[in-house]
Amino acid sequence: MKIKVTQSKLSKALNNVSRIAIGKVTLPILNNVLIRVDQKKVSLITTNLDMAVIDYLPVSSSEDGVITVPAKLLAEFISNLPKTETVEISSKDTKVSIKAGNYSSTINGTTADDFPELPEINEKSAVTFKVGVDEFKTSITEVIIASSNDLTRPALTGVYFNTYDQKLAIAATDGYRLAEKILIDKVKSDVKAIVPASSLQEVLRAISDDITEIEFSFNNDLACFKVGEVEIISKLIDASYPDYQKLIPKNNDTKVILDREELLRVTRLAALFAKSVGGSIICEAKKPDSFIVKSVANEFGENDSEIKTKVTKDSRVHFNSRFLIDALNSLTEPEIEFSFSDRVSPTVLQNQKDRSYTHIVMPLNS
Amino acid sequence: MKIKVTQSKLSKALNNVSRIAIGKVTLPILNNVLIRVDQKKVSLITTNLDMAVIDYLPVSSSEDGVITVPAKLLAEFISNLPKTETVEISSKDTKVSIKAGNYSSTINGTTADDFPELPEINEKSAVTFKVGVDEFKTSITEVIIASSNDLTRPALTGVYFNTYDQKLAIAATDGYRLAEKILIDKVKSDVKAIVPASSLQEVLRAISDDITEIEFSFNNDLACFKVGEVEIISKLIDASYPDYQKLIPKNNDTKVILDREELLRVTRLAALFAKSVGGSIICEAKKPDSFIVKSVANEFGENDSEIKTKVTKDSRVHFNSRFLIDALNSLTEPEIEFSFSDRVSPTVLQNQKDRSYTHIVMPLNS
Repeated sequence: MKIKVTQSKLSKALNNVSRIAIGKVTLPILNNVLIRVDQKKVSLITTNLDMAVIDYLPVSSSEDGVITVPAKLLAEFISNLPKTETVEISSKDTKVSIKAGNYSSTINGTTADDFPELPEINEKSAVTFKVGVDEFKTSITEVIIASSNDLTRPALTGVYFNTYDQKLAIAATDGYRLAEKILIDKVKSDVKAIVPASSLQEVLRAISDDITEIEFSFNNDLACFKVGEVEIISKLIDASYPDYQKLIPKNNDTKVILDREELLRVTRLAALFAKSVGGSIICEAKKPDSFIVKSVANEFGENDSEIKTKVTKDSRVHFNSRFLIDALNSLTEPEIEFSFSDRVSPTVLQNQKDRSYTHIVMPLNS
Repeated sequence: MKIKVTQSKLSKALNNVSRIAIGKVTLPILNNVLIRVDQKKVSLITTNLDMAVIDYLPVSSSEDGVITVPAKLLAEFISNLPKTETVEISSKDTKVSIKAGNYSSTINGTTADDFPELPEINEKSAVTFKVGVDEFKTSITEVIIASSNDLTRPALTGVYFNTYDQKLAIAATDGYRLAEKILIDKVKSDVKAIVPASSLQEVLRAISDDITEIEFSFNNDLACFKVGEVEIISKLIDASYPDYQKLIPKNNDTKVILDREELLRVTRLAALFAKSVGGSIICEAKKPDSFIVKSVANEFGENDSEIKTKVTKDSRVHFNSRFLIDALNSLTEPEIEFSFSDRVSPTVLQNQKDRSYTHIVMPLNS
């Protein structure tokens, strides 16, 4: 195996693949990156068994072969070399030699025999979508925040890709809040797939400035995301997703328009006083024009702030301030609609103009 | 007690003082900032018993009085208010009311009776120095890195301010490396004082863009640093400092001039391979023109890099790569002098031109 490539291309590719190379005690080869050269086509591959990252590396010259090398060591080594150098990597048995200008080193590699086989997506039976990179990045970021870390409810640790009314929506919920975004407005194929949030984080990290479009496809139990030269193949979460549409209230009758920055500020102020009461704050709309955010009086003191806005029906709700702050940070327009109805019904937050993103927060029962 | 002041001034002052307000379980009042108004002079004061920070706050109107309030809560609250607001703080008994535009809150304060008395420096008997802010900042940063965290050797957790040959030098050592800087070239007074590194960190943090000069003074057991409106008073470390001058070798006979960036790069490369051997790397000078940095061969592999430079005497030394990297990051000129003589003598690193900063690293015995 032999490749010759510029430091900058190699370093970028190694950074893309090495993040997920975290060896388990029982399977240390997962620390390694597999370097495969096959008829001038060079691929760098890592996997953590749930997910594989493949980077197709354009090189100036090569000799066929395959070897695995500790991924983080190689990535750090290459990233420390001068950007202008050409790097030559060659292997003889399991010794991998790296040369670049006056720098030389030998890394102890491992044969590729024990490297786990990669899942492969069946391109023919797969359902494929394409979306602009900015739209993809924004939408995933807006939704992923509502996903859960609780491994006892695996479905909620993912983002649910699902089609209805000829739209592709993505959604996530942790049981306390829920975020949904219409990712593509008109689609022909159908899909219901739960992609692990951790795999999507990896997709987001692989996006660089020269990428304009993301292609992603699903078949039975796999998702594949193509981000330029990088391919991320992830297992889907094998669970059924809750029927989340039912949770979004359609008839909240107190609807107020608020300045997003202002609401964020007063929520943060109230949150400071709410630390000793689990973050609980109160939002209250009072006819004809008052919206009040306040903390419950406690050992630290108390706080209230008023925002002037049109109110047609009084209402009052208790929240966890952290969830409201997250929601407001995910919204983007200067003005938002805050709609609620009573103490038990979820509050719906949306940008005032573009209604493709819906964020709902459950009230606290108090 | 009552003050009226702009959000920006108050927020800056609270940020300066609140960092050290970390209450101990036995003395929760240390969480608080003391606000004292005395004839239009407003001071904000915090202490952790080893150190006190005082900020003299210019206000537009005030009424005399004194109260203490949880420092972090107040600092976060004020920093979240709009920058354009005028803030009014007033106290009635222990209730502290804060008003700014539409925002209002009440913080539960505590009377100042239990607030620890502050150490006071005797201005008359104190020895005082002045130095430009950039010189101060650079010098402290260059030296403090060599100080120790080991509380069993208290002297080494400080920076030693000491005068000799009519110069004021500062020095720090953790037993593995030592850094010394001539802070002022001509001084008339004498001082020997060990200032806790943690107090100096606080002094560095208090420096803002509008500061041009730092004044500092010492008397028996205290140091006082004046940074604009902020005063930091610190206890000195009551211990005797090692006679560090003896540790700096005067006659290292292998002296090589090296490109600092290049040496840093090859040290980092060797360090990657040295993780399994405690960071141990080898530097070797070979006549007539070769300087080699390499790692010892081990389970990961091995690495060597060569830098061309004039060598008049062969020499070889083992190092902890981390200490060499720290030293190179503290030096500033493009070229440095690396002088060593044998396996047991410390290596001396200096900028090639300005020799006011000396960094020495002990070799590893292997």
